[in-house]
Amino acid sequence: MLMDDMGWGDLGVFGEPNKETPYLDQMAAEGMLFPDFYSANPLCSPSRAALLTGRLPIRNGFYTTNGHARNAYTPQNIVGGIPDEEILLPELLQKAGYKSKLVGKWHLGHQAKYLPLKHGFDEWFGAPNCHFGPYDNVHTPNIPVYRNEEMAGRYYQDFKIEKNGESNLTQLYTQEAVEFITRMHNKSKPFFLYWAVDATHEPLYASKPFLGTSNRGLYGDVVRELDSAVGKILASLRSLKIDNNTLVFFSSDNGGATYAKQHGGSNGPFLCGKETTFEGGMREPTIAWWPGHIKKGQVSHQVGSLMDLYTTFVDFAEVAMPTDRVIDGISLRASLLNNTNVQRPLFYYRGNQIMAVRKGSYKAHLWTWTNSIEEFKKGTNFCPGQDIAGVTTHNQTDHTSKPLLFHIGRDPGEKYPISPNTPEYKKEMPLLMKEIQNHMVLLVPATPQLNMCDEGVMNWAPAGCNKGQNKCYKGPPSKPYNCTWPH
Amino acid sequence: MLMDDMGWGDLGVFGEPNKETPYLDQMAAEGMLFPDFYSANPLCSPSRAALLTGRLPIRNGFYTTNGHARNAYTPQNIVGGIPDEEILLPELLQKAGYKSKLVGKWHLGHQAKYLPLKHGFDEWFGAPNCHFGPYDNVHTPNIPVYRNEEMAGRYYQDFKIEKNGESNLTQLYTQEAVEFITRMHNKSKPFFLYWAVDATHEPLYASKPFLGTSNRGLYGDVVRELDSAVGKILASLRSLKIDNNTLVFFSSDNGGATYAKQHGGSNGPFLCGKETTFEGGMREPTIAWWPGHIKKGQVSHQVGSLMDLYTTFVDFAEVAMPTDRVIDGISLRASLLNNTNVQRPLFYYRGNQIMAVRKGSYKAHLWTWTNSIEEFKKGTNFCPGQDIAGVTTHNQTDHTSKPLLFHIGRDPGEKYPISPNTPEYKKEMPLLMKEIQNHMVLLVPATPQLNMCDEGVMNWAPAGCNKGQNKCYKGPPSKPYNCTWPH
Repeated sequence: MLMDDMGWGDLGVFGEPNKETPYLDQMAAEGMLFPDFYSANPLCSPSRAALLTGRLPIRNGFYTTNGHARNAYTPQNIVGGIPDEEILLPELLQKAGYKSKLVGKWHLGHQAKYLPLKHGFDEWFGAPNCHFGPYDNVHTPNIPVYRNEEMAGRYYQDFKIEKNGESNLTQLYTQEAVEFITRMHNKSKPFFLYWAVDATHEPLYASKPFLGTSNRGLYGDVVRELDSAVGKILASLRSLKIDNNTLVFFSSDNGGATYAKQHGGSNGPFLCGKETTFEGGMREPTIAWWPGHIKKGQVSHQVGSLMDLYTTFVDFAEVAMPTDRVIDGISLRASLLNNTNVQRPLFYYRGNQIMAVRKGSYKAHLWTWTNSIEEFKKGTNFCPGQDIAGVTTHNQTDHTSKPLLFHIGRDPGEKYPISPNTPEYKKEMPLLMKEIQNHMVLLVPATPQLNMCDEGVMNWAPAGCNKGQNKCYKGPPSKPYNCTWPH
Repeated sequence: MLMDDMGWGDLGVFGEPNKETPYLDQMAAEGMLFPDFYSANPLCSPSRAALLTGRLPIRNGFYTTNGHARNAYTPQNIVGGIPDEEILLPELLQKAGYKSKLVGKWHLGHQAKYLPLKHGFDEWFGAPNCHFGPYDNVHTPNIPVYRNEEMAGRYYQDFKIEKNGESNLTQLYTQEAVEFITRMHNKSKPFFLYWAVDATHEPLYASKPFLGTSNRGLYGDVVRELDSAVGKILASLRSLKIDNNTLVFFSSDNGGATYAKQHGGSNGPFLCGKETTFEGGMREPTIAWWPGHIKKGQVSHQVGSLMDLYTTFVDFAEVAMPTDRVIDGISLRASLLNNTNVQRPLFYYRGNQIMAVRKGSYKAHLWTWTNSIEEFKKGTNFCPGQDIAGVTTHNQTDHTSKPLLFHIGRDPGEKYPISPNTPEYKKEMPLLMKEIQNHMVLLVPATPQLNMCDEGVMNWAPAGCNKGQNKCYKGPPSKPYNCTWPH
């Protein structure tokens, strides 16, 4: 269950003061909470590509070299997508007889060759891109919603999202999940469900019964509906009596979108949010649930990554891991079953630049950047209300000769850099730098997939658009150019 | 159980990422969590005076008029203290046969007439002031530790707090609590224990087994010891089989001391900390526990105040409330037993000035102030890493003609003032202003107790200092003057 832009601090169990997530809090009480769990990237597409490949975006191609340390993703005019050479999680699980379904957002490329059914999924109901819109279908087409290999309609036109935020999409996505689980169970098929709902991503939406019910405003309404949906999905596993046989992870693709102000999530006590490599940008609200296998009410301080889901699921499915490539994920088997921790470094990338590294409770920033002063002055603020001199910098600041060091156990808000003159700095920094060196030695950056844009490749005529509906639009001729990534 | 400077965000159950408070989290799981609970003041002495009188400091005298909106407390050179006219909680409980004990910090005045046994407590082990020091006993005496009416020794000299933070004081205070509970139980006496430990107040201390055990540094070690102590006290109630007959509240006197940086607590997602009337200054980590009466695992969104403990305990003890004065606390009986909420306004005072008001989820600031730019430039920062234009002001800013309005449900960090041009502002602001008016009409400010200082009244010769110990020091002659309160 992968949320979109949900923040670490959005769950009651992670300290959201309104405590409006009873089902997720219950899921944590019945399972294992991971307060030290991270996405592989502070932005959606690279984070999702990393989850499904077990590899950092720099290795799977989900980054750009058009600028230094730029966040890039897969808007409608992106040319690239997930390369065929990448082995996605459902491709591996197929070998153990698993049927896989994606419900919701793909975001790994929208041209035909990049779509989910070309990369290991057996079924799909959802969209290749974000639900941005509505568009005019002249300058920009609306985003298609797919049923497997063909378009089932388009957002705003066939799958409504009203201006007031009303939409039944989360309900639809929940039904799809429960239907798939039930059908697979009836066929005695092992299954992998990737439930990638996107309602917490702007523009926010919730169904009518949830609108206006939260004390947190529309964003809270959305969280309440997702929380309720999680409850329904777990209940379906229980009622089918396969809860003891189903490992469920809940997490989010990147930090809360602080730039969206009250339409964005909460990152709790952490610094900044989505798009940044501060804790608020990449620390995710993560819960694992597997009654009978994971003991109730545990907290794991394993430093985890969404990439670990790849390795963990492959481990439990008893499929051989690929040996011809670096896999960045580690198996969480020991964490889940015995609550033991493995020491491992965690790398915070922004585009083509490794910005920071964490090991244990220490984190070193090689580079700091929020966004440019021009973007900031135009009103885009990744750190509203937060300002830490020399840390939340508006120019890309190179600290490689003397990295900023934080102890994020005693200073989760990254407010108090440890002075380079202290014995602590002198002891810890070389250990962190050693991890960077080890990492860089083996690093072979992939061909960047997110460099080229082209209005011609937009969703003008997705597969099946001409079947029974007049949903194929005439686009401009192909004219590729280098995408601009301002952040 | 009243903590000292502990922040809302210091408990695992309130989202502290290291999750190091298993006993408190368990207490919450067995009882009722109050995420919307407040102190009556952002500083220790006024907050404690309000707790024990059920009345705002402006009514019980615990404020100063030496400057506008200044925080004041009871250092060693304070002349004033709790007036005899105030009726303290243990005085009322006496009428129902309760025996009362204070363990820990008093802070309601240190001259003989102000001490706990003169104001309803039957027993006391602890100190009249903070454990600041060590002092030289020439310019400043060390703080006395009392056993009932006489000094048992002094901090640093007889009750050690080492430079590295090692001290067994929390262990001593825990033993005192358990011994009192056990003794009262054996005598079949109803009892009121006011366990006011101060280890989370700078200078921090913890006993050797806890030092170095937290991932949060020394502050975390202290929290872990207090958490463990709470576990021991609740265990003693269980083993005496009086847990079903004992209502226990856990809370803190004011927000985490953000100015103390990594030696201060966490206020979670809230703005600023101790000394301020932002949420971080007054929202407290509060849990109620009463097995068999309070249902397990509940969350109450009652807007509560430490002053409510007065009214609530008096209500359950079936003693008549004083009728000759305004009591600001309300009874939480319905919240505790039925989880229903009472609408009530909450007033945020700083010294003689009402700074803000909350009702429902709306909060209006009439005045904003962090501290003076001079103090700030000297390094005292109540809002480290936080800066919100027009909100975290360094001059006392008068908003009374157009108060700042926040919805603290969707904006707990007080980052996004609601524009005065909105229908929401136009609807809500008059309601909040009406609460202020109603409050002011009935307000009769007491004679301020915290105006006068005098080095002659310091703890030179506390009661009993000459009994068997040479702990009486010669102080300067009495020379009263107006205290200076910079914040």
